[in-house]
Amino acid sequence: MTRAVAPTGTVFGVGLGPGDPELMSVRADRLLRNAGHVAYFRKAGRSGQARRILDGLLRADVTEIALEYPVTTEVPLTDPRYNDILSGFYQDCVTRLRAILDAGEDVVIVSEGDPFFYGSFMHLHARLTEHYQVEVVPAITGMSAAWTATGAPITWGDDVLSVLMGTLPEDVLVEHMRRADALIIMKIGRNIDRVRRALRRAGRFDAAWLVEYAAMPQQKVQKLSEAGDRVTPYFSIIVVHGHGRRP
Amino acid sequence: MTRAVAPTGTVFGVGLGPGDPELMSVRADRLLRNAGHVAYFRKAGRSGQARRILDGLLRADVTEIALEYPVTTEVPLTDPRYNDILSGFYQDCVTRLRAILDAGEDVVIVSEGDPFFYGSFMHLHARLTEHYQVEVVPAITGMSAAWTATGAPITWGDDVLSVLMGTLPEDVLVEHMRRADALIIMKIGRNIDRVRRALRRAGRFDAAWLVEYAAMPQQKVQKLSEAGDRVTPYFSIIVVHGHGRRP
Repeated sequence: MTRAVAPTGTVFGVGLGPGDPELMSVRADRLLRNAGHVAYFRKAGRSGQARRILDGLLRADVTEIALEYPVTTEVPLTDPRYNDILSGFYQDCVTRLRAILDAGEDVVIVSEGDPFFYGSFMHLHARLTEHYQVEVVPAITGMSAAWTATGAPITWGDDVLSVLMGTLPEDVLVEHMRRADALIIMKIGRNIDRVRRALRRAGRFDAAWLVEYAAMPQQKVQKLSEAGDRVTPYFSIIVVHGHGRRP
Repeated sequence: MTRAVAPTGTVFGVGLGPGDPELMSVRADRLLRNAGHVAYFRKAGRSGQARRILDGLLRADVTEIALEYPVTTEVPLTDPRYNDILSGFYQDCVTRLRAILDAGEDVVIVSEGDPFFYGSFMHLHARLTEHYQVEVVPAITGMSAAWTATGAPITWGDDVLSVLMGTLPEDVLVEHMRRADALIIMKIGRNIDRVRRALRRAGRFDAAWLVEYAAMPQQKVQKLSEAGDRVTPYFSIIVVHGHGRRP
């Protein structure tokens, strides 16, 4: 009796949404409840935000693949070692995942937020998509949860929305803050002072909201001007609403 | 025997996501399956995209409230009557919804995409939020479905994403197209020629993708440069990907 060569498994890149498990899509929920292999990123030594969202959802016999960042903030972005270290890390992740995929098993790789909107899944996607079937499931972004938490629409009519990372140079931030109607600013943790200065220079500081832990139990929403000087968590989001035409 | 005055009902502003019912959130799915009153916008004489997403999901005894636009494109945006007509329409919608809410019944108002990201729900929200408890459920945006459909990430590293409406003046479009790394352009139907000119002037035309009916059965993805000159549906989305740093 001859046996056919087993086909390789499929990669599912599944967005978990902003943090509340009920804000996962119906498809993501179904894929995760049935998954045999689930991979997620986390910082070494931490349980991880993505894994927390999965609590109580996975099969008892699931194989979990924790992909643990070798560095996050210890080496500065400007250090030439940063890219080398991360590149090696992603290659190691891929090696682990390929072993499962080549055995014919599917793997669900989860992301906080949407898989193709910033974030780490994209680096695995770039390394896997040539070799395997990849299906990406979009998700609710953290920024959607943040503007929802403020209780007001982010954009009206023909408002321009610009999404900015707090890691950008101050002058670049100011320029976009002046030109756009609505603003989302992410990755603000260690960059909060530069972001505050840029918002002030652009005349947008007093309209800015700070949302911490959007769609999580510890969610906190306040005007940025009332947040004091403390450094905010890396995954805080600043929201400045647009005010386009309104019938 | 005295009877307490019944409390008023709650407004649920629920995003349906981009079109595939499986891309609705678990919470939206649950709220809709249990809802006694469901309101949705549509163009008069059409079944409506939002209602189509709900097919097979609602209770047999649900009360449906179709909110039918008096105009959409028949009167130009620049016509002073446009705002008056729409304002009267939203007020009529609110009158219908308040009758249900004041009777102590909850109403689920659905939106395509995310309720606070452009779109019509926000005009009802602005008129109801002072009088009733309102809970907004965020959702996957049409733009997330569009970039997912292209099979490539929209933003990497510290890319700037700008979201632009095709209704904007050409010079405003060009300026933002030049400055942002990644672009989303929506509301392009009748504005497609201006959008094309702006993309060419900004040097972004050859990198632009056109996604029609994202996350719907008739989804179509192609380079904009290969789409020919036909006018595309109003809810088509143009995607230009960012290319930030990549380990």
